[in-house]
Amino acid sequence: MRKVILDLAVTLDGYIEGSNGEVDWCIPDDDMDFPGFLAGIDTILYGRVSYEMWGNFQPDASAGETEKAIWAAVHTKKKMVFSSQEWQDSKATFISSAIPEKITQLKQQDGKDIWLYGGAKLITTFIQNGLIDVYRISVHPTVLGAGKPLFQDLKERINLHLTEVNRFKSGVVQLIYERKV
Amino acid sequence: MRKVILDLAVTLDGYIEGSNGEVDWCIPDDDMDFPGFLAGIDTILYGRVSYEMWGNFQPDASAGETEKAIWAAVHTKKKMVFSSQEWQDSKATFISSAIPEKITQLKQQDGKDIWLYGGAKLITTFIQNGLIDVYRISVHPTVLGAGKPLFQDLKERINLHLTEVNRFKSGVVQLIYERKV
Repeated sequence: MRKVILDLAVTLDGYIEGSNGEVDWCIPDDDMDFPGFLAGIDTILYGRVSYEMWGNFQPDASAGETEKAIWAAVHTKKKMVFSSQEWQDSKATFISSAIPEKITQLKQQDGKDIWLYGGAKLITTFIQNGLIDVYRISVHPTVLGAGKPLFQDLKERINLHLTEVNRFKSGVVQLIYERKV
Repeated sequence: MRKVILDLAVTLDGYIEGSNGEVDWCIPDDDMDFPGFLAGIDTILYGRVSYEMWGNFQPDASAGETEKAIWAAVHTKKKMVFSSQEWQDSKATFISSAIPEKITQLKQQDGKDIWLYGGAKLITTFIQNGLIDVYRISVHPTVLGAGKPLFQDLKERINLHLTEVNRFKSGVVQLIYERKV
């Protein structure tokens, strides 16, 4: 069955962004093989705000080749946007209700894995409903002190199985877990 | 100069214990070489409550040999207890004021490294005052959802330098950082 994958950078104290949305602690790491990750997925899930910001983003002409290649690969994927209002956008499918049921259906269809892009509210909905199969968490060497936590408002603890650890020159450590079922 | 080392187990969401003090998620890991860590220190720092609970703890006769050896090693160390009241205990030195100054003096004396044992309040004081040189954080494969966070009430962010990553069979990943100065 296809897996729903969360791939995210966090600070050592578990924040995905600072109190004012800061992500300046986030270190881009070329040796992280993000293109390899993208090759394994064919669908991206966005919240409405994230889709508006990043769903059709085009890097500047001055951007590096790797960055351009990553965005080109992102825009070949099937996109699904979760929003309480119905929307019009020929490049995405909109889902406004029954998220757990629709994700369960999606996972049973043929295809590659599914990347849960964010934002925070959608991620929380997915975590709370047990819809994430793989957590790929890149722990950055910064303690931020305050901000938006990755894990919030959980109803029960989640037990995970560690499958992979990758250490990068930047001091980032990527921890990959699967949900214990 | 001697280093102050924090060695602690945390959940993936950064808690050192659950809302009701639960530490049942904490996996004892024989291959973690805790005796090797103990060999490198000669002083242990406690808060008052932690010292009362663990400062003179003796394991049951039924405990394993490794556990007995660890506690015997712990009790050969010099112990310092931070408390607002003065106390009497021939086995420990008490410190009731001027923590940053006294720790700075302690670090300038000859000796092995210094283990900051805890509890949470003392750890927070040390973090807030920039007194920790090495963070040895064992990330456990559990998302707890609520509890007592390792990092709280920070005034500013802390930038760290990753020095070591150890992965254990249990799914625990030990991340070792030094403070950037």
